[in-house]
Amino acid sequence: MAGAMRSITRCVFTCKLSGRKHSACLASCSGIKWPQATGERHLATKYGLLDTGTDIIPLADAKRFMTDCMMAVGSPREHAEALAVLLAEADYRGHYSHGMNRLDMYVSDIQYGNCDPKAKPSILKESPATAWVHGNNGIGAVVGNFCMALAIKKAKEAGVGWVACKGSNHYGIAGMYTMQAMASGLLGMSFTNSSPFLTPTRSKQASLGTNPISLAAPSKGDPFVLDMATTAVAVGKIEMERRKGNPIPRGWALGPTGQVETDAEVAFKTGRLMPLGGEECNSGYKGYGLGMLVEIFCGVLGGANFGRNIRKWGSQDSLANLGHCFVAVNPECFAPGFTGRMEELIDMMRQSEQVDADSPVLIAGDPERAHMKAVDDHGGVRYVKDQMATCAKLAKELNVKPLQSL
Amino acid sequence: MAGAMRSITRCVFTCKLSGRKHSACLASCSGIKWPQATGERHLATKYGLLDTGTDIIPLADAKRFMTDCMMAVGSPREHAEALAVLLAEADYRGHYSHGMNRLDMYVSDIQYGNCDPKAKPSILKESPATAWVHGNNGIGAVVGNFCMALAIKKAKEAGVGWVACKGSNHYGIAGMYTMQAMASGLLGMSFTNSSPFLTPTRSKQASLGTNPISLAAPSKGDPFVLDMATTAVAVGKIEMERRKGNPIPRGWALGPTGQVETDAEVAFKTGRLMPLGGEECNSGYKGYGLGMLVEIFCGVLGGANFGRNIRKWGSQDSLANLGHCFVAVNPECFAPGFTGRMEELIDMMRQSEQVDADSPVLIAGDPERAHMKAVDDHGGVRYVKDQMATCAKLAKELNVKPLQSL
Repeated sequence: MAGAMRSITRCVFTCKLSGRKHSACLASCSGIKWPQATGERHLATKYGLLDTGTDIIPLADAKRFMTDCMMAVGSPREHAEALAVLLAEADYRGHYSHGMNRLDMYVSDIQYGNCDPKAKPSILKESPATAWVHGNNGIGAVVGNFCMALAIKKAKEAGVGWVACKGSNHYGIAGMYTMQAMASGLLGMSFTNSSPFLTPTRSKQASLGTNPISLAAPSKGDPFVLDMATTAVAVGKIEMERRKGNPIPRGWALGPTGQVETDAEVAFKTGRLMPLGGEECNSGYKGYGLGMLVEIFCGVLGGANFGRNIRKWGSQDSLANLGHCFVAVNPECFAPGFTGRMEELIDMMRQSEQVDADSPVLIAGDPERAHMKAVDDHGGVRYVKDQMATCAKLAKELNVKPLQSL
Repeated sequence: MAGAMRSITRCVFTCKLSGRKHSACLASCSGIKWPQATGERHLATKYGLLDTGTDIIPLADAKRFMTDCMMAVGSPREHAEALAVLLAEADYRGHYSHGMNRLDMYVSDIQYGNCDPKAKPSILKESPATAWVHGNNGIGAVVGNFCMALAIKKAKEAGVGWVACKGSNHYGIAGMYTMQAMASGLLGMSFTNSSPFLTPTRSKQASLGTNPISLAAPSKGDPFVLDMATTAVAVGKIEMERRKGNPIPRGWALGPTGQVETDAEVAFKTGRLMPLGGEECNSGYKGYGLGMLVEIFCGVLGGANFGRNIRKWGSQDSLANLGHCFVAVNPECFAPGFTGRMEELIDMMRQSEQVDADSPVLIAGDPERAHMKAVDDHGGVRYVKDQMATCAKLAKELNVKPLQSL
């Protein structure tokens, strides 16, 4: 979580909505989901592609490297590749915090004996539209792919597939799985619980994870891919502001006594995120409610760890035993012409009256599309320096071929 | 939307979280979902029960009156009672904005010929876990009850029931339907689109409804009932601040040029709500994304009107043709012991460290429980004065027996 986008310093745009310097606003929008402008230079800057401190790594080599590392710690090729595809996709889409940045965490989980790289998930219970799965403490990507494939199969047979699992590990970007359903012409949803960061409204104790929700829906035009934490922001955003010496807006995080914190340094060290909405007077209890929804679908339905029972972020003192939930819905079971109407809705939103002529109205998935184009144009990703250093160290430790730049 | 809770003036608590006078903070928390304190006097004040300007109406008589009114405009008893039960439940739970306050709107829809009180929904398409339903322009409560009953039946047979409809009208509180699933031991979800109020991030045009999400989940202890708009607040909250001459917090609404508005009068007249999260730097695009999720499940999946194609709030110039979505999930298809784990999760949240000893950490459904107890203790609801006046006028116009106080 800590390694992404550390050298973004060049963007000079001003946020027309907030009136804040873009350097601040850009950071507010990190997690790389919603850039303030869509020009290539902006995106490239935002995503580190113009960081000339390092070379460009083709995605194919990033995948090769990650596969090699995972195999070096005992993962079968198939499982290693599943994780490599997941992390490379996150980087490709601009979600660097969930990409190669986390490779050492996955490697470490295996080295500590807290994740079984060989384990395959098993089905514990089934009905026409549902399945309960045991991840058997396997790699999150392996468990996730298995569950979503099952949900897709059931959606094709019964209209809906709803799969919950226990005994899993960190599964990367939630959007990875929902896009698998979308590629089959279905709506996909995915949820996961995670280590405690979110403080319930009126509490100062981290009690739920950032618990993301993803929905992917196919369209005749661009698809809709929502992938969002139910906290106001991710920890990584606070870290970015801290590194720049900026304050953070009210509504992101609490300080040690439970007060709303605007000092990024204090907020980062405290590690207590506010739910989406922020303070109670701005309906932060709704974000807390959504975090609970995710926990109910994952930890409670799946019979996994939940809430504060989940180990702390970065801890290796016990198994993660995370729960995920995967849903696929066949739009052909409902009104004909779904993808055409999706395109119409998306066009309607994009064409809605802008506050500022320079700031286009986007839909979920637009920033990622722009980022993927930039990566394609550049032939790869220019990872930030300490990301490259971490990978070089890993290559040496695991005795695998280092990343090969263009 | 405009008539709820107009005479709440007595609460003197101070919000310990925001440090604001409670008179302001209470308004921020209207929509009656999250009181700042749970003492009975506070709740009673908040919900108007101590408004001595009017008499107490037993819920049974409120239902009788609403049934009479609907029958007077041509509704069969069964359909009239369905609406009466829905609206009385909203009032009982403290969601006055969605209760008897809206009776005249439902009556008016029928009088204008925009809702057919006799219409019964029909199934257009079915699979083991799904159904597509036509509301045939019937009463929203009738359509909603039909669809959720179908979802429950399918969940019992196939594990999940997912029902989307078109051709419906305003269906009241989303939680009504999810609690029906919960009463059958299932998880229930419900969504509806509605008239445009939400401005997408970077836009100043009302383009999506307040598009609520509800999840009800059974528990060995108190159940979890989330019922939330995907806008930061409802229009009614802004109206309350306007009546009191208070400013509104940043993040609730936009003004005429698209700037963040803090003048309640201007915000109310402009009618442009910000999504949950508020400004872009506070992740308002997530709330906008959730509003889209609801629209996709309702308008797009159901083949109903969607986005700006839905008629304006209060307009009678065309049919509403709303879409809803209902989901039921059988927890018995997953890890055994669901309700026990729910209780454990709920207890864990309530017991999480409080910021302030006087402000207990709540879960979704707690404020409603406290309100229901207060109504039970009082023997009914003390509706605000202009609500009573509207009902008296309606009784005269429709020639039905007026409301009978205790």
